[in-house]
Amino acid sequence: MYNFKNDYSEGAHPAILKKLLETNEVQQDGYGEDEYSAEAKNLIKQKLNNPEASVYFVSGGTQTNLLVISILLKAHEAVISATTGHIYSHETGAIEATGHRIITVDTDDGKLRPHDISNILNEYSLRPHVVKPKMVYISNSTEIGTIYHKNELEELSQFCKLNNLWLFMDGARLGQALTAEDNDLSLADIARLTDVFYIGGTKNGALLGEAVIFNQPQVAPEFDYLLKQKGALLAKGRVLGIQFLELFRDDLYFKLGNHANNMAMKISVALREKGYSFLTESTTNQIFPILPRLLIDSLSQKYLFYEWAAIDDQHSAVRLITSWATKEEAVDVFIADFSSFSDKI
Amino acid sequence: MYNFKNDYSEGAHPAILKKLLETNEVQQDGYGEDEYSAEAKNLIKQKLNNPEASVYFVSGGTQTNLLVISILLKAHEAVISATTGHIYSHETGAIEATGHRIITVDTDDGKLRPHDISNILNEYSLRPHVVKPKMVYISNSTEIGTIYHKNELEELSQFCKLNNLWLFMDGARLGQALTAEDNDLSLADIARLTDVFYIGGTKNGALLGEAVIFNQPQVAPEFDYLLKQKGALLAKGRVLGIQFLELFRDDLYFKLGNHANNMAMKISVALREKGYSFLTESTTNQIFPILPRLLIDSLSQKYLFYEWAAIDDQHSAVRLITSWATKEEAVDVFIADFSSFSDKI
Amino acid sequence: MYNFKNDYSEGAHPAILKKLLETNEVQQDGYGEDEYSAEAKNLIKQKLNNPEASVYFVSGGTQTNLLVISILLKAHEAVISATTGHIYSHETGAIEATGHRIITVDTDDGKLRPHDISNILNEYSLRPHVVKPKMVYISNSTEIGTIYHKNELEELSQFCKLNNLWLFMDGARLGQALTAEDNDLSLADIARLTDVFYIGGTKNGALLGEAVIFNQPQVAPEFDYLLKQKGALLAKGRVLGIQFLELFRDDLYFKLGNHANNMAMKISVALREKGYSFLTESTTNQIFPILPRLLIDSLSQKYLFYEWAAIDDQHSAVRLITSWATKEEAVDVFIADFSSFSDKI
Amino acid sequence: MYNFKNDYSEGAHPAILKKLLETNEVQQDGYGEDEYSAEAKNLIKQKLNNPEASVYFVSGGTQTNLLVISILLKAHEAVISATTGHIYSHETGAIEATGHRIITVDTDDGKLRPHDISNILNEYSLRPHVVKPKMVYISNSTEIGTIYHKNELEELSQFCKLNNLWLFMDGARLGQALTAEDNDLSLADIARLTDVFYIGGTKNGALLGEAVIFNQPQVAPEFDYLLKQKGALLAKGRVLGIQFLELFRDDLYFKLGNHANNMAMKISVALREKGYSFLTESTTNQIFPILPRLLIDSLSQKYLFYEWAAIDDQHSAVRLITSWATKEEAVDVFIADFSSFSDKI
Repeated sequence: MYNFKNDYSEGAHPAILKKLLETNEVQQDGYGEDEYSAEAKNLIKQKLNNPEASVYFVSGGTQTNLLVISILLKAHEAVISATTGHIYSHETGAIEATGHRIITVDTDDGKLRPHDISNILNEYSLRPHVVKPKMVYISNSTEIGTIYHKNELEELSQFCKLNNLWLFMDGARLGQALTAEDNDLSLADIARLTDVFYIGGTKNGALLGEAVIFNQPQVAPEFDYLLKQKGALLAKGRVLGIQFLELFRDDLYFKLGNHANNMAMKISVALREKGYSFLTESTTNQIFPILPRLLIDSLSQKYLFYEWAAIDDQHSAVRLITSWATKEEAVDVFIADFSSFSDKI
Repeated sequence: MYNFKNDYSEGAHPAILKKLLETNEVQQDGYGEDEYSAEAKNLIKQKLNNPEASVYFVSGGTQTNLLVISILLKAHEAVISATTGHIYSHETGAIEATGHRIITVDTDDGKLRPHDISNILNEYSLRPHVVKPKMVYISNSTEIGTIYHKNELEELSQFCKLNNLWLFMDGARLGQALTAEDNDLSLADIARLTDVFYIGGTKNGALLGEAVIFNQPQVAPEFDYLLKQKGALLAKGRVLGIQFLELFRDDLYFKLGNHANNMAMKISVALREKGYSFLTESTTNQIFPILPRLLIDSLSQKYLFYEWAAIDDQHSAVRLITSWATKEEAVDVFIADFSSFSDKI
Repeated sequence: MYNFKNDYSEGAHPAILKKLLETNEVQQDGYGEDEYSAEAKNLIKQKLNNPEASVYFVSGGTQTNLLVISILLKAHEAVISATTGHIYSHETGAIEATGHRIITVDTDDGKLRPHDISNILNEYSLRPHVVKPKMVYISNSTEIGTIYHKNELEELSQFCKLNNLWLFMDGARLGQALTAEDNDLSLADIARLTDVFYIGGTKNGALLGEAVIFNQPQVAPEFDYLLKQKGALLAKGRVLGIQFLELFRDDLYFKLGNHANNMAMKISVALREKGYSFLTESTTNQIFPILPRLLIDSLSQKYLFYEWAAIDDQHSAVRLITSWATKEEAVDVFIADFSSFSDKI
Repeated sequence: MYNFKNDYSEGAHPAILKKLLETNEVQQDGYGEDEYSAEAKNLIKQKLNNPEASVYFVSGGTQTNLLVISILLKAHEAVISATTGHIYSHETGAIEATGHRIITVDTDDGKLRPHDISNILNEYSLRPHVVKPKMVYISNSTEIGTIYHKNELEELSQFCKLNNLWLFMDGARLGQALTAEDNDLSLADIARLTDVFYIGGTKNGALLGEAVIFNQPQVAPEFDYLLKQKGALLAKGRVLGIQFLELFRDDLYFKLGNHANNMAMKISVALREKGYSFLTESTTNQIFPILPRLLIDSLSQKYLFYEWAAIDDQHSAVRLITSWATKEEAVDVFIADFSSFSDKI
């Protein structure tokens, strides 16, 4: 059974394991004060074109989301998210558990636009009987594979500034977003247009780890305390530092994202050629073809993937995910199998 | 500069890195549903002599403490700890941040006894104007190097059962406790005498990871939800599983703890021979010799360690920590240097 | 300007003030241990036909909701509410501030039915990546004036029991619900069919106060601690006790609710006779007529009320609320004014 | 049995009840937007000599403490209190329930001094492994009857400003403090020397209610949201407004405090004349005489009061509290009884 269920089915890119081995016996300070973390942060700040940025390494995405959102929101403030947003759909109420409402917006493509936010601000105006919307949470790429383009992010950024809202980008799959064929954003753009964002390692070649960036350090100058308080500060912070040191040395991060996308697009093209349509217009490593149930049943004999949504009695959308580790041969076999199964039904 | 500041200055035991490499490309389910985690849990349950136990892997000690304490306590309940307890002294209010008071007891040796708890219960009786003490938190080994003996733990366990209190053992350094020369407890004893405890990996050879054990699964049957909600559930849970798989294959865990203790005891004996006394009666890998400031200054030129507490104008207690990775040659050089510096002052 | 904005524009029913005066100098124990509170609880338990019930007095509705919901839900559990539910629409995130998601259901009439809940249970099944729905919150009367009938509450109650869900009824306007012309529920029915509910005093003649009832005391045996912890335990608990002592002596509570409804129905009939329709089918003291904007403007010169929702360019629904204190003469004048304004446009 | 257990055994000063009656049928806006609250706030601001102050009315002391502390502290910040402080000793962990540690200082007289705070700052310096002390909580009068003098409060205020610490005064018994014979502070002094404080109504003649004052409104400009979120915003806010309107019209508040103190001092003088000593040097309405157990037993036949602390096998300190409502005749009878019982043992 080959696994297209997610992009965290394998371990880490070999370069990272190699570095772990090489540095294993070197004594280092704990809690992120090691040399590898320092060097990794410098590499990232160069890419951001922002030497003033504050960079922190955190183990995973849910932890990052709850840390960032809870440090920036006051008790009565809320965050706005697409209904598909990871914080709303797959994090077990992690944000509410820090005390904050997530105000959701239904969207077709998983992306938020200024008029969505504007509607929410109008609905939440009866002070003090309602929460105060204060942050906009977006994901890039989104949970359904789409990406933000530069003009979209600029409009959203400008709207947030005008309305005194924090703009936070969940970049669990930022590597894939920034290497999509239709992408026109750079890390430096994102650093310029958001208040805070993170660069996902776990889903793009790391054993674990997300790099959180506060573009203006005064926004959260005491984030270190919160990291410790919420159990997010690893004693052997070197482990996280090494992930990003290798991912950002020689642009490995972008090469891995690009590979993941290429594998998904190869499948996508093949399925389109067979006449199948898609639930979303993904240009990244998650695709959602709409398939007959009979075909899904056949594929399920050899491949692991999620059924995402029922479309009608005879069709469902499935989610196929590729990753930095997906082998092109496996993709080719999948396409051949798909073609063969498809022809039979 | 050789580092005696802590037991997390190096990476992981080589067996763990080797296993990470070997298994790196094997596809596995995420979120702890991988084969390595399952196998590691089985190994641990065998050691506990309790096939019914629930075992979970968590990244670090603070995270483990806040998860365990917050799932077992209701809003108005409190946990009792020695003032030296890690949850009180070094976790940035992590427990209070989950809503619970830590009621502290001053002790000489970092250990709690039934009469300490009994006093607290008497003080906190004016329902509903005071919190309800409901959990006893102990560390083994303690934060000052001492350990619990079987009769002590049995008395405490019995007292807790009689008084309807949870007994929770922080085992961040359990490997060192269970291999101390004066230890008479086994993992199975601890499983029998506590409600919940954890086996620390980070400070005994793992890259990261603590194994939490609920001895009766019905005590916290939905702990998995909390792991996810608090950001503790790693997507690549295999990383944690592999740590414990290697640590508990062939009793590596105990061999590493034993080595750490031996290195500390070797230093301890040498210092006693030179006539120095100690702040605490440690038999584990943390020792607290009381030294003249002049000697401390000399040692500080070549070694990293913490000054723990001022004793008088001319003396302080320092903390020296050894670990699974401490090289005996380094210890020998330290003893020689110590002897030489000591003779000069 | 006569005020139809809400049902808390005046003070308390004179019987309550009289009792406050009469008892003012009698020394009583604090924190709800006074004789008046005890007597009031007994009166309520008689009405419930449940001598075992636990009754507590709390100052207001938001406080009651957050206390009840947070004591019954574990960290990862969520409450289901209609989107119009007070906890979602008008309580400033009070429930999320205790850590819990409110899962909302859009409804036409403000009421929840088993199939609504069933849908939610299906959506929230991907353990442990989603919260666990564990409570159903309903309001009677609802925030838009409708009420639950006995068969509806029985079906909902049965569904909740089968699915291991708490059923909690917000009775901020229970007096009005139970005296509506189409009501067929009694306090004893509600006690039998819900796990916990409250009897609203503030909106039915009290200065302040809601009476929370746990129908089975073992459900929340330590609620007293939470009352104190959240700042809800008044030192002079006698004040709350006296409200309910008077409201439940001689059924004053029901007489007041009935009067409020009658006043609203009188307006309702008059507006229907003039040909106006209503946003909701209210039979209680909140009505939502749909009126031309010109008419709304005229009425606004003499009356205070809320514009509730725009219907089209020229019409809006407004909310008119009557109360125990609404004078029939004021209603008659309003009807006359309404008729006159209506004829002019 | 006459009750000397507390200062909230009776209802309200008659002037307040009279005003409640007079205004009962006047329609007013809800949620504190009524005319009485507005007028009461103006009276208080005049007394403070600070027209810019923000004044809010809250039902009780625990609620006030948790609201003020949680709005001013960030997640990782802590409050410093005397061990006797109400927030630590009698509020069921209300502050920890909002996520914050209370760092305690043992004192003889219930008062904090700069060197106490300085010691705490030194102990809590290992960022980010410890919480950050950020607020100093004091009570005036203290929970053991003592008061702050002007020079003490000035020193503490200066120290807090220099060290960037909030200074918060719990004034549950501020009326008694400001009318003590050795008091040299005014409300205006307190407004000048603290960041936030409150004027206690419940223990000085109100049915319920504390007036919170932020001396600089920009310190907590969105406190209204928190009031609503935590269930502290009464629908009939007029009830609270009327309490303070009457208490601050014609200085009733100070007259009541003065009476309470006089009654306690009368008892105090009588007991001293009989040769008894006191646990604390109270000049306010709480006194703590040390009495033989036999005498305590005799008094307990006719009077209600708390045994506060065992002194030795044969003596205990008791707490006697007087209030605005304590009748001088009752005090005279008590003194006569005391004298008679005392002579017999």
